[in-house]
Amino acid sequence: MIAPDLPIAMELIESHNTAHREVLEDDYDHLKRRLSRSGVDADKIKQRVKRLELATPTWGAGVGGTRFAKFPMPGEPTNIDEKLEDCAVVQQLGRNTPRVSPHFPWDWTEDPAALKDKAAALGLGFDAVNSNTFQDQSDQKRSYRYGSLTHTQAPTRDQAIEHNLACIEIGRKLGSKALTVWIGDGANFPGQQSLSKSFDRYLDSAAQIYSALPNDWFMLLEHKLYEPAFYSTVISDWGSSLLAAQELGPKAQCLIDLGHHAPNVNIEQIVARLDAAGKLGGFHFNDSKYGDDDLDSGSINPHQLFLIFNELVEAEARNSARFHPAYMIDQSHNITDPIESLLSSAEAIAAAFTHALVVNRDELAAAQDANDVMAAFQTLRRAYNHDVRPLLALARVEAGGAADPIALYRKSGWRDRKAQERRRASAAPGIV
Amino acid sequence: MIAPDLPIAMELIESHNTAHREVLEDDYDHLKRRLSRSGVDADKIKQRVKRLELATPTWGAGVGGTRFAKFPMPGEPTNIDEKLEDCAVVQQLGRNTPRVSPHFPWDWTEDPAALKDKAAALGLGFDAVNSNTFQDQSDQKRSYRYGSLTHTQAPTRDQAIEHNLACIEIGRKLGSKALTVWIGDGANFPGQQSLSKSFDRYLDSAAQIYSALPNDWFMLLEHKLYEPAFYSTVISDWGSSLLAAQELGPKAQCLIDLGHHAPNVNIEQIVARLDAAGKLGGFHFNDSKYGDDDLDSGSINPHQLFLIFNELVEAEARNSARFHPAYMIDQSHNITDPIESLLSSAEAIAAAFTHALVVNRDELAAAQDANDVMAAFQTLRRAYNHDVRPLLALARVEAGGAADPIALYRKSGWRDRKAQERRRASAAPGIV
Amino acid sequence: MIAPDLPIAMELIESHNTAHREVLEDDYDHLKRRLSRSGVDADKIKQRVKRLELATPTWGAGVGGTRFAKFPMPGEPTNIDEKLEDCAVVQQLGRNTPRVSPHFPWDWTEDPAALKDKAAALGLGFDAVNSNTFQDQSDQKRSYRYGSLTHTQAPTRDQAIEHNLACIEIGRKLGSKALTVWIGDGANFPGQQSLSKSFDRYLDSAAQIYSALPNDWFMLLEHKLYEPAFYSTVISDWGSSLLAAQELGPKAQCLIDLGHHAPNVNIEQIVARLDAAGKLGGFHFNDSKYGDDDLDSGSINPHQLFLIFNELVEAEARNSARFHPAYMIDQSHNITDPIESLLSSAEAIAAAFTHALVVNRDELAAAQDANDVMAAFQTLRRAYNHDVRPLLALARVEAGGAADPIALYRKSGWRDRKAQERRRASAAPGIV
Amino acid sequence: MIAPDLPIAMELIESHNTAHREVLEDDYDHLKRRLSRSGVDADKIKQRVKRLELATPTWGAGVGGTRFAKFPMPGEPTNIDEKLEDCAVVQQLGRNTPRVSPHFPWDWTEDPAALKDKAAALGLGFDAVNSNTFQDQSDQKRSYRYGSLTHTQAPTRDQAIEHNLACIEIGRKLGSKALTVWIGDGANFPGQQSLSKSFDRYLDSAAQIYSALPNDWFMLLEHKLYEPAFYSTVISDWGSSLLAAQELGPKAQCLIDLGHHAPNVNIEQIVARLDAAGKLGGFHFNDSKYGDDDLDSGSINPHQLFLIFNELVEAEARNSARFHPAYMIDQSHNITDPIESLLSSAEAIAAAFTHALVVNRDELAAAQDANDVMAAFQTLRRAYNHDVRPLLALARVEAGGAADPIALYRKSGWRDRKAQERRRASAAPGIV
Repeated sequence: MIAPDLPIAMELIESHNTAHREVLEDDYDHLKRRLSRSGVDADKIKQRVKRLELATPTWGAGVGGTRFAKFPMPGEPTNIDEKLEDCAVVQQLGRNTPRVSPHFPWDWTEDPAALKDKAAALGLGFDAVNSNTFQDQSDQKRSYRYGSLTHTQAPTRDQAIEHNLACIEIGRKLGSKALTVWIGDGANFPGQQSLSKSFDRYLDSAAQIYSALPNDWFMLLEHKLYEPAFYSTVISDWGSSLLAAQELGPKAQCLIDLGHHAPNVNIEQIVARLDAAGKLGGFHFNDSKYGDDDLDSGSINPHQLFLIFNELVEAEARNSARFHPAYMIDQSHNITDPIESLLSSAEAIAAAFTHALVVNRDELAAAQDANDVMAAFQTLRRAYNHDVRPLLALARVEAGGAADPIALYRKSGWRDRKAQERRRASAAPGIV
Repeated sequence: MIAPDLPIAMELIESHNTAHREVLEDDYDHLKRRLSRSGVDADKIKQRVKRLELATPTWGAGVGGTRFAKFPMPGEPTNIDEKLEDCAVVQQLGRNTPRVSPHFPWDWTEDPAALKDKAAALGLGFDAVNSNTFQDQSDQKRSYRYGSLTHTQAPTRDQAIEHNLACIEIGRKLGSKALTVWIGDGANFPGQQSLSKSFDRYLDSAAQIYSALPNDWFMLLEHKLYEPAFYSTVISDWGSSLLAAQELGPKAQCLIDLGHHAPNVNIEQIVARLDAAGKLGGFHFNDSKYGDDDLDSGSINPHQLFLIFNELVEAEARNSARFHPAYMIDQSHNITDPIESLLSSAEAIAAAFTHALVVNRDELAAAQDANDVMAAFQTLRRAYNHDVRPLLALARVEAGGAADPIALYRKSGWRDRKAQERRRASAAPGIV
Repeated sequence: MIAPDLPIAMELIESHNTAHREVLEDDYDHLKRRLSRSGVDADKIKQRVKRLELATPTWGAGVGGTRFAKFPMPGEPTNIDEKLEDCAVVQQLGRNTPRVSPHFPWDWTEDPAALKDKAAALGLGFDAVNSNTFQDQSDQKRSYRYGSLTHTQAPTRDQAIEHNLACIEIGRKLGSKALTVWIGDGANFPGQQSLSKSFDRYLDSAAQIYSALPNDWFMLLEHKLYEPAFYSTVISDWGSSLLAAQELGPKAQCLIDLGHHAPNVNIEQIVARLDAAGKLGGFHFNDSKYGDDDLDSGSINPHQLFLIFNELVEAEARNSARFHPAYMIDQSHNITDPIESLLSSAEAIAAAFTHALVVNRDELAAAQDANDVMAAFQTLRRAYNHDVRPLLALARVEAGGAADPIALYRKSGWRDRKAQERRRASAAPGIV
Repeated sequence: MIAPDLPIAMELIESHNTAHREVLEDDYDHLKRRLSRSGVDADKIKQRVKRLELATPTWGAGVGGTRFAKFPMPGEPTNIDEKLEDCAVVQQLGRNTPRVSPHFPWDWTEDPAALKDKAAALGLGFDAVNSNTFQDQSDQKRSYRYGSLTHTQAPTRDQAIEHNLACIEIGRKLGSKALTVWIGDGANFPGQQSLSKSFDRYLDSAAQIYSALPNDWFMLLEHKLYEPAFYSTVISDWGSSLLAAQELGPKAQCLIDLGHHAPNVNIEQIVARLDAAGKLGGFHFNDSKYGDDDLDSGSINPHQLFLIFNELVEAEARNSARFHPAYMIDQSHNITDPIESLLSSAEAIAAAFTHALVVNRDELAAAQDANDVMAAFQTLRRAYNHDVRPLLALARVEAGGAADPIALYRKSGWRDRKAQERRRASAAPGIV
């Protein structure tokens, strides 16, 4: 089951884990004791956490930037092969990121089968494919300056639809099961576009993509409040996303990116509502303080991440049959080593999930039913207050990963080695 | 057609209008000339504006307050009879507010027929009835401390449902055609309530109310981001409102209060989306800078009000058959004379409507189709820049109202007279 | 040192603590072991946390409300004597709230000396006094409808100044050392007031209050973005507060209420800036998701509370001589028992302080200097992830409080007993 | 006085204006009549508006982009010479933009004197110079990845200081009188940098720049809430900017960019506060709906722009001696022809200024003093409602510009001609 070409030497991991074993056991034993006092079996939780699967985005393996600047780092990957390698490091050490999510045309390949094999050898599979109609490519006939799937002119819409169909095609060959559609279409000026007609055009274009979707695929619609459009965005909120997903059909689902909401919005409630509507398709995990900051998951508001997972655990309990959200980390690593940020973020997400799993659901429901507000709140808060790091570390170690992934990664010298081997990335501003 | 008991002497209005006639005609003639150069017929617009109908809320006739304080004013109305009188002043002078929207139990009466007659004599009809399950009344069996339509306990939900049924009943006798349902239900703490179960209970309770709705009525669901609940609100956004309205049926429609959204949200786009979904039920007009500030319509952002009416004019043009939104002014007049604020606000709303009517729709559509962004924007902006006050004033004068309603109202001495006649209002904090 | 009239029987506390001892020791021992591995001495931290002092507001002992409603609870206190009793319960069980902060005229007394004695007998002292010029009192000559310290008319300003002087006078007799000045003055309409003249009038009025301040007192200026004024507020942000405090003199300091900021604002940075300016006067602790929600401290965003204490610990280390912020819990307990919320909040604040104390400052500074972004972040995050509840519980127990204060409080039957003894509170909407 | 090398043929302008004369005169005559009824002399206002001076940013002459994409347009300028030409078109037709604000190193030249001459021949002078330490240049020794003026390492700070000194030097030769300093320095993670030490380093670096400032120059400090730093920004708000400007000295002033504030913030009040502090240095005009959207001035909220100018007119009346704010248009023209956006924006700003000038200040002050809230509001609103386009057009025509600048510009065929002559701009994402 362990892939043949794993990037970090197993002995390094083993000796690292051995050095951590004693302390880790002491800590885990205490946590287990502490949890058992409230009727929670730490071992069961640990097993569940091991099965958490988060996709890593290929573009997230590179250094990101803003519209003002990008500051590349030596050794960062600049093509899909290098990105796969780095994602393999993340998966080898962290054990919760078994698949990568490719982005086209950035990750374009003439030979998807070879790419799939390469990934498999590194211990990786492929998650949702992402189409890109928010940029013009040099070989592109028609510009997306004024829109893509919602453009006023049919040939431009057709071109954008074709690109999505090509993404499905390559995704099939890579083993993907979903297409994520995010468009930047919108307006910068009041009056620039008809708010109703642009939505109609979206529905029409999306329906053509939907009709080409394999039966066992999902089409994940990703909304975003603003940026790159700054007055209005065609799919700007979960309501618009829901309307579209309802119109398209059961394979169309809504995807929540944690940074794509208006200020103050209660995101965990959106999770509950989309689940009620049968349209909870997946997540792009990141964190933010202001706009779509694409910061590391849980770095700004770890408690919100916990509340989101609290809803997810509830949703799964309500209807496990239809519960299948796709989880992806979607961050812009502007000033950190992307491998470190992905490892740190995967742990933060796993921690939020673990905190949600240790909530005593019976007590919570009883307090809620009795309107014992303080008891209900404290039931959640007690779970959140637990220091679950020993459980996460042991889960990783038992799965072949590292007790302290970032420390081990640093010790491995990976980035310095790659800085010798790889070509330098561009310093042009922008996300990739 | 003019009601028998109008509160302001007709001679006063006539002499006021006579004094304004010359200037008004000069201004209107110029505006007409100016509009005609861009192919717009001012007279036709004027006729259309005369037909604009905005409901006034009975509670808005009194002085409002915050949780910190209320500062009553001498002569403000303290019962439904006095409130009707003041609303009649607003309608007599402004001519765009022919109906009042009552609120129960605040406006409770044993004799609805008599109330209807009294209103008719004052030149007023009744608009949507508003239920209130966000406060406890002294004679109430069960408290809404932990919710009403979404309460965990069935008897409390039943009590809230019963109250809504009573509102429908009295509304029928008053000639209303809609029930507006806004609840404050929600939570102040994470964990306090199940985000999914509380929504389910809402749907269940609302369905019982819906089933009692007369065939020619609408049930208007009003969402609100927060306040009085500060962590989550059961019907917090237009997406939740839409889901509920879809579940309930065609008579259930969504109502947009301009102050009930997250910061930065594009409200005019929500108008377009709800219209696309066939669920655009109505508006509560007001303005805000921070939260649900309930300020006078257009006082903070008149351009946004114009953009909202721009969508409404587009929506009506697309599908006039199903276009029937209920318009109400919903403001808290904390430091102004409510009659003056209602007159000022009705004019601001009529101005926004007028600006939207003078948009050259053909030019706009052509510029949009051609992606001539600047031309499209300028087409809207040109309409907004017109000084339409002469048109509004003339429309009022022709309909029997006043050229300058606030000036005339002040001259009439109404409030001073009422200060002699009416009992003093309470200074307890709160909205009413 | 223990006061004579403590409300909860000592035997109850002792038996409660005895029942928790074994588990508490196991948990604390492990935490101590865990912290010592990163060079932190848990016992020292515990001693420091015992010295944390948070004032409780007298009004916070009662049930709060919104502008829409208030839902009183049986047994809630309705006068200053009862409020002191309830605050004494909080201090007896939680041990971090030794003083109460009174509010005038709400807590008015003819005999401050007697009140001071009564408090002392309950184990309580008095913190900052709060003036109130945002409401009209029944015996008041001039209304604050259009402002108080910034009113356009001198007699109204003088009345508001006089009230503040009276607050200082009673505060001296109660043993207070600070006057907190928050005004609601502002405007609901553009143009309503001159933004510059109203600020000038504030400075003039505040200077008169300042000049009456005893030498060992502070005058704490509290800013707030909005509410009750909804277009502009005279002291709306920390910049305005700073300008005023600079103008007034060294005894004038800025007070930060966590809920009084614009969305997304980085509050911990304001802490650092005010400290740099020598103007960090104090805090009103609470939490919020939308506006000035006055929710329980740390209930919505415990991580932000940690980051604020992180700055406070840094500020004290930089300049302990001038570091003397006044800490108060300022919350509106609308749907919980206020005693429970105060106990829970005091613990949440103490937890944030503890997390900040266990940060390895040397490691943090080294990582910051080296721009090792991930290491710096992880140093903070590692501290935050510790489960410090055992330390907090042991600190309480050692100081004579309860291992699990809320559980013990519930067991004591306090509220039910008081429900028999005390008169019912009013259900009128509003904050108190 | 008219420069020799103006880009658009004078005959074209003259025939255009002749064609508009009759209508323009009718409209202006009516406006003059209408204004005179409220005691306002339109001719005097027109003369004042002619003296309004707005700088255009050189980079704003090019097409801007987001981090996602840039969509260049044929004929857009790609070097400082071409940018000057396009700014000259804007000034020739619009007449309120006599100076350009250069940005270094983007506009670097070895021969500033020649550049100054070239600009003068085009009818242009130079406004504030802008330094850039938020990007790395290819020839740069040390990276600004982790900061510039606030970097932890002195050599990097020195490099950034040196760059600012070089900007002053070239600015002197160009005839500039101000240096605008905006840095992107900040942090993406809690803990990444010391919030206090980074501010100290800013003060230290800024003081070194300040000390090199010529006596008749200003140093304009520009704050920004976020982006490119997403957790904290060193100079994030007007309070931080004020503290720094106070520390530096009288030549240091605060610059307000309309898009750099937290949501909901009352910007016009910041204008009043900075003026009270004697630190109102200047403006970067643009508009926004969400973040720092850099949209065309007044396109989203023209009423807010009016309220800002209302404060500016008040500030000048209070203290004209020290009133000297620098005005610049700072926008990102992503999907419009930058010349059209600059023309449209300059007119929107001039309109806001004109609306502020026609406010009856005596009536406003009287209503404010009397707390006649509605009268005060209506006094402002009456001014805003005037259609001042005829006045603006006539002011342009009288100054040698065009009655309808965008129409004339389109007719001139400028961009098509340039598309033949100029090289194609890059499509790399980012602001320039």
